[in-house]
Amino acid sequence: MLPAAAGYDRAITVFSPDGRLYQVEYAIETVRRGTLAIGIKAKDGVVLAVEEKTRKLQINNVTQKIFQVDDHIGVAAAGYIPDARTQVDHARFFAQSNRLIYDEPVDVEGVAKNIADMAQQFTQYAGVRPFGVALLLAGVDKNGANLFLTDPSGTYIGYDAMAIGAGSDQVTDFLEKSYKQDISLAEAASLAVECIYLVSEDKSSTKHMKMAIIDTKTKAMRKVEDEELEKYAASAKEKAGRHPA
Amino acid sequence: MLPAAAGYDRAITVFSPDGRLYQVEYAIETVRRGTLAIGIKAKDGVVLAVEEKTRKLQINNVTQKIFQVDDHIGVAAAGYIPDARTQVDHARFFAQSNRLIYDEPVDVEGVAKNIADMAQQFTQYAGVRPFGVALLLAGVDKNGANLFLTDPSGTYIGYDAMAIGAGSDQVTDFLEKSYKQDISLAEAASLAVECIYLVSEDKSSTKHMKMAIIDTKTKAMRKVEDEELEKYAASAKEKAGRHPA
Amino acid sequence: MLPAAAGYDRAITVFSPDGRLYQVEYAIETVRRGTLAIGIKAKDGVVLAVEEKTRKLQINNVTQKIFQVDDHIGVAAAGYIPDARTQVDHARFFAQSNRLIYDEPVDVEGVAKNIADMAQQFTQYAGVRPFGVALLLAGVDKNGANLFLTDPSGTYIGYDAMAIGAGSDQVTDFLEKSYKQDISLAEAASLAVECIYLVSEDKSSTKHMKMAIIDTKTKAMRKVEDEELEKYAASAKEKAGRHPA
Amino acid sequence: MLPAAAGYDRAITVFSPDGRLYQVEYAIETVRRGTLAIGIKAKDGVVLAVEEKTRKLQINNVTQKIFQVDDHIGVAAAGYIPDARTQVDHARFFAQSNRLIYDEPVDVEGVAKNIADMAQQFTQYAGVRPFGVALLLAGVDKNGANLFLTDPSGTYIGYDAMAIGAGSDQVTDFLEKSYKQDISLAEAASLAVECIYLVSEDKSSTKHMKMAIIDTKTKAMRKVEDEELEKYAASAKEKAGRHPA
Amino acid sequence: MLPAAAGYDRAITVFSPDGRLYQVEYAIETVRRGTLAIGIKAKDGVVLAVEEKTRKLQINNVTQKIFQVDDHIGVAAAGYIPDARTQVDHARFFAQSNRLIYDEPVDVEGVAKNIADMAQQFTQYAGVRPFGVALLLAGVDKNGANLFLTDPSGTYIGYDAMAIGAGSDQVTDFLEKSYKQDISLAEAASLAVECIYLVSEDKSSTKHMKMAIIDTKTKAMRKVEDEELEKYAASAKEKAGRHPA
Amino acid sequence: MLPAAAGYDRAITVFSPDGRLYQVEYAIETVRRGTLAIGIKAKDGVVLAVEEKTRKLQINNVTQKIFQVDDHIGVAAAGYIPDARTQVDHARFFAQSNRLIYDEPVDVEGVAKNIADMAQQFTQYAGVRPFGVALLLAGVDKNGANLFLTDPSGTYIGYDAMAIGAGSDQVTDFLEKSYKQDISLAEAASLAVECIYLVSEDKSSTKHMKMAIIDTKTKAMRKVEDEELEKYAASAKEKAGRHPA
Amino acid sequence: MLPAAAGYDRAITVFSPDGRLYQVEYAIETVRRGTLAIGIKAKDGVVLAVEEKTRKLQINNVTQKIFQVDDHIGVAAAGYIPDARTQVDHARFFAQSNRLIYDEPVDVEGVAKNIADMAQQFTQYAGVRPFGVALLLAGVDKNGANLFLTDPSGTYIGYDAMAIGAGSDQVTDFLEKSYKQDISLAEAASLAVECIYLVSEDKSSTKHMKMAIIDTKTKAMRKVEDEELEKYAASAKEKAGRHPA
Repeated sequence: MLPAAAGYDRAITVFSPDGRLYQVEYAIETVRRGTLAIGIKAKDGVVLAVEEKTRKLQINNVTQKIFQVDDHIGVAAAGYIPDARTQVDHARFFAQSNRLIYDEPVDVEGVAKNIADMAQQFTQYAGVRPFGVALLLAGVDKNGANLFLTDPSGTYIGYDAMAIGAGSDQVTDFLEKSYKQDISLAEAASLAVECIYLVSEDKSSTKHMKMAIIDTKTKAMRKVEDEELEKYAASAKEKAGRHPA
Repeated sequence: MLPAAAGYDRAITVFSPDGRLYQVEYAIETVRRGTLAIGIKAKDGVVLAVEEKTRKLQINNVTQKIFQVDDHIGVAAAGYIPDARTQVDHARFFAQSNRLIYDEPVDVEGVAKNIADMAQQFTQYAGVRPFGVALLLAGVDKNGANLFLTDPSGTYIGYDAMAIGAGSDQVTDFLEKSYKQDISLAEAASLAVECIYLVSEDKSSTKHMKMAIIDTKTKAMRKVEDEELEKYAASAKEKAGRHPA
Repeated sequence: MLPAAAGYDRAITVFSPDGRLYQVEYAIETVRRGTLAIGIKAKDGVVLAVEEKTRKLQINNVTQKIFQVDDHIGVAAAGYIPDARTQVDHARFFAQSNRLIYDEPVDVEGVAKNIADMAQQFTQYAGVRPFGVALLLAGVDKNGANLFLTDPSGTYIGYDAMAIGAGSDQVTDFLEKSYKQDISLAEAASLAVECIYLVSEDKSSTKHMKMAIIDTKTKAMRKVEDEELEKYAASAKEKAGRHPA
Repeated sequence: MLPAAAGYDRAITVFSPDGRLYQVEYAIETVRRGTLAIGIKAKDGVVLAVEEKTRKLQINNVTQKIFQVDDHIGVAAAGYIPDARTQVDHARFFAQSNRLIYDEPVDVEGVAKNIADMAQQFTQYAGVRPFGVALLLAGVDKNGANLFLTDPSGTYIGYDAMAIGAGSDQVTDFLEKSYKQDISLAEAASLAVECIYLVSEDKSSTKHMKMAIIDTKTKAMRKVEDEELEKYAASAKEKAGRHPA
Repeated sequence: MLPAAAGYDRAITVFSPDGRLYQVEYAIETVRRGTLAIGIKAKDGVVLAVEEKTRKLQINNVTQKIFQVDDHIGVAAAGYIPDARTQVDHARFFAQSNRLIYDEPVDVEGVAKNIADMAQQFTQYAGVRPFGVALLLAGVDKNGANLFLTDPSGTYIGYDAMAIGAGSDQVTDFLEKSYKQDISLAEAASLAVECIYLVSEDKSSTKHMKMAIIDTKTKAMRKVEDEELEKYAASAKEKAGRHPA
Repeated sequence: MLPAAAGYDRAITVFSPDGRLYQVEYAIETVRRGTLAIGIKAKDGVVLAVEEKTRKLQINNVTQKIFQVDDHIGVAAAGYIPDARTQVDHARFFAQSNRLIYDEPVDVEGVAKNIADMAQQFTQYAGVRPFGVALLLAGVDKNGANLFLTDPSGTYIGYDAMAIGAGSDQVTDFLEKSYKQDISLAEAASLAVECIYLVSEDKSSTKHMKMAIIDTKTKAMRKVEDEELEKYAASAKEKAGRHPA
Repeated sequence: MLPAAAGYDRAITVFSPDGRLYQVEYAIETVRRGTLAIGIKAKDGVVLAVEEKTRKLQINNVTQKIFQVDDHIGVAAAGYIPDARTQVDHARFFAQSNRLIYDEPVDVEGVAKNIADMAQQFTQYAGVRPFGVALLLAGVDKNGANLFLTDPSGTYIGYDAMAIGAGSDQVTDFLEKSYKQDISLAEAASLAVECIYLVSEDKSSTKHMKMAIIDTKTKAMRKVEDEELEKYAASAKEKAGRHPA
């Protein structure tokens, strides 16, 4: 938690004397309180994975934190999830409009910019609060596989691999050491599982994780089912055994 | 009651330094102050039940806390009930529009998302307060029986069985132990009564409870009349006798 | 008077940490400060009665607290009376629209829901205060005699008999003991007078009370004139003599 | 002056914990600070009178506090007079619209309700203050002579005789003792002068008073000129001599 | 300067516990801070005069404080002069509209009421401050010569002679003693100069005063040039010599 | 700097108890903080000059503080310069509209009034701050050469010569002693340079000054180039040598 | 960091007693917190360069801080980058509109004024915060090579060379000493690298810098690729060796 900055944290869209926008920083704090979300680019696609603890009677085959924007674009979120849903709905509309107008699938960066622009507006105008969520936007377009991060400030940046949410600093350090650009989708998926084991209490099952893959060949997002996820987990546990964190 | 968080609790749509939206948390507190509401999926339908204490001269055959959204969808509410009515009216309109446009009954999840989207908006824009109510949305559609929870934050999640309102933590613990997916509607109804007896002072009559059932065969919500309710209560009391809480 | 709850009572449409809407609770306090209003259903109609202290030179044959919504629907109010007038005007418009659209008199519950929905809106949006009045809505429609209570929170509930305003707790206790569903209109009227004597200083005259009756046969509201009122008072005083409070 | 009620008196349209609207009560205090205005019904008309201290060089034959709404309706005001002018303009428009639509003069009560409805709105919506003025509305219509009081709360009540403004409590007490329903217009006018002498320092001249009369025969409001006023004053001084206050 | 009234002076359009509108009273204080303006009716016209200290290099033949509304109507202002310009522009538009619609020059009182109505609105609605200026409106219409005062409260009153701005209390006292209704325009002009000498440091020249006259014969406002003004000053100084203040 | 006036300085468009508009006074303080701007009328035109310190790598042949409104009208500004640009754009639009509607160049006073009217509005309505800039508006029209000052209060006044910004009090004193109405444009230009030397640290070069001249013959504004400016500076230094300040 | 100025820093669009707009000054503080951005005009074009530290897995061939507005115009930003994106989008729209309307590329100064005008509006109206970013706008038009600075106050100024962001004071001092107007584009590029080395910790690689060049011949902006950048860096390091800072 950040130290309370008397007064500047209450009013929206106001600079503090040292040039900071506290409401935006607090919204980013909301992201840090969310559970982990990871995006990893492979040579043949992109992987999105989230840690998602479900209660016992919750319908488990539905994910709260991974969304599909278009056939070829998916999103993993960390932070205030209802805000993520709003941003994703906005992005879906943008993607569909693009198909209607240009008769081709939208670029992933176009969607990232569109989401970030909306987020920026919510930091400058009164009468609204910033979005309390960061998104990892993964997709395959004519430029190949893409991974973008958008955050409450309205920033968007491209990454090869990125983690957001609780424990993301530790995971990002790990990714910076372990990531290689020429890994396969299976290796990326396995690496994503390894990241979740790094910060989660449950270091063996796959019940607390969800995953989606966008393949450069199919150009389509698909949900990773439990059986396949188990294979990535097995491989992750094997690797983790070789290089203990 | 939550500790008063100086200042952050007064203005709407503002993040606290630790990334929380206090107004939303306080609205969820309103839900906790409401009387118990329960939803339980069975293999052949869904049951909604509420504890509803009526005053002596109140018209007893009308329920304040169970609403019908469409033929095949019902709602049980806990919290600030006038807000529930507003959300239900909104959902009815959405369901009717769907019938007009697509000429088929709306999906239950579609309604849940619609209610949750509206709730999210009321947490982000100034000039309104969040909704002070959580809803259990039960219905039967082409995907079978469904049960969704919506809350003031704008979250919606699918469950097999769920309780909201005063005593819901204790009831949810009980449900996690007792619930099985292959129970019949009658067993679910009996289980719901058992839940109410768990937290209510009146542990024998049915005067303080209301129930509705949506059957997968009829795809229609129906109110459970007193006589039928008595049967479920008898069965619940018998079971409770066997495994005392 | 409620204890002052620092801060939460000033801004509108804001939850307190314990999930309460203070402005709504204060508006309900306004109702408690109003003079007594009573509604009692009989087997052949409904009675509305109010205590209304008039100054010496005030025009006495006009009531400030009983209103007619439509031929078959009347209202008795307690609290901030100018707000009651606004709600009644709103209800009149709703009733007339119903006649124009469906060519039949509106249902009493439909009017109650309409008033309550408006009241709920005034608790959720900024720029307005809640209504400071509760209404007893009495009427005869195809479902027979009806009595509904609406209050500043936006709640509406059906009752056989109900009292609002100063002394209403005492009167409601009395009604719960004395009321029977099969009483005649005359008995209900007499019971209403008894209620007023219970809390009023003037325990013998009828100068400080107004009454209206909606009969199931005529389906029309009529004002009870002084002579008739005296008869009910005589009968009330006789009964009160038999069972002193 | 009322004791300052910390905080509740600053924001508009907000209830205090004891269910009061302080802004409305303060506006009524503004009325009490105004100079005296009186309305008295006679068997053949209505009299309006005001105490109006004019400065030495002020144009004396114009009154600031008595207004004409329509041929048959006049108004006497106490409190913040510019607000009275706004309400009267509003009432004039309403009266003219009525003539255009129904081709007959408007009822006096209809005008009173119209003014009071507007006043109620100004107590419920943000962005405005309540009106700081009370009006005595006198007129002759198909129901005979009428006298209504409207105040900042949005209340309107019919009276036989009523006083508002500084000293009105004392005058109302006096009227309750002295008033009789069968007095003639001349007697009512004389009584009105007596009321002014009761609270004014100048207890002999007519320079500080203005009067208007609406006669049931002419159904027209007319200003009482100085000569006629002197006669009423003479008669008033004679009566006052007989029963000293 | 008025004593600061904690809190009630900050928010607009709010009553204080003793029923006062502080913002309006402060705006009237702005008028008192302005330099003197005087209006005096004569038997054959009206005179407007202002004290107006010009800096050395200021263009002296233009007045900042006397305005022409229409051929036959002029205004002298005291207080916040840019607000006077806004009110005068508004009045000009009103006068021109009147000419277009009724094909005759507007009544002076009509203009005074129009200005005062606008001023009243600025005391009742949020989002604006009251006008900080008082106007003396002088004109000749079918009722002869007219002089009206409008102030920030929205009041307008007719006078034979009136002073506003710094020293106006002293000047009004003097006018009440010296003014006679049958004076000629030249005498009124001379009296106006005498008033200015009464409160100004410069008690001999005419450099610090501006004057305008509306004659009942011409029905046209004309600026009084320096030479003519000197004559009135000479006569004023002679009179002042005879009856020293 | 003015002493901080607790509270009254924060809210916009609010009077203080002594009838002052602090926000307007603070905006005028912004003008005083700006660098010097001067306007001087000559018998054959008008001169505008400003002190403008440019950084070393700044493009020096562009002025930030002198603007052209129309062929025949120029502006020199002191205070918050971005506000000046907004006012000038507004004035340009007004001047062009005038040409389109009346087919002749706009009067200089018309432009001054237009700018001042806009400034007045920004002192009376909420949601905006006053303009933080004063303008010297110079131009040649059918009335000859003109010079007007507009300021944040919405005042506009005509002058023969005027200075605004830092040191303007000293310069105005000097102008009041030195200025003569029958000076030539060259003498006025030289006098303007002398004014700048009076308050500037650099008392010999012309690098820190910009000048524009509107000639009554050409009726066109032209920028004074460096060479010409040097001549005026030489003459100014010569004069200053004769009468040391 | 500026000292906190009690109160004045919280509300938008409000002057402090000493005539300052704190919100604007705080927004300029945001610019100072950003990383360095530099613009340098050469005899045959303009160079833009930024220091941009990328994280290890960030996509490095995309710049966050240099934008293209039109073929012939580029922007380098320092401060709150999402705001820069908004201003650039606005400028792109303006540039495209200009092409459509006038069928020629827009002037660089026109774009600078357009951005600055928008920034000024955001300092004067409530409901928004100022932009927290400064832009260096570089382009080639019919006037040759241009470089403009826009900042949060709404100011725009032309420069030969300018630096903004952290360390810009030191760099500007250096540029004032080192810059010559007749340098070639290559020399300007090399100088820009030298500036970055001056304030950056990394004083040898080019990984933390991005550069763009607009050539007067091609009139087109082009990104400087790594290889070319290395050459400028080599030349910069050589020069720096000759004259150590």
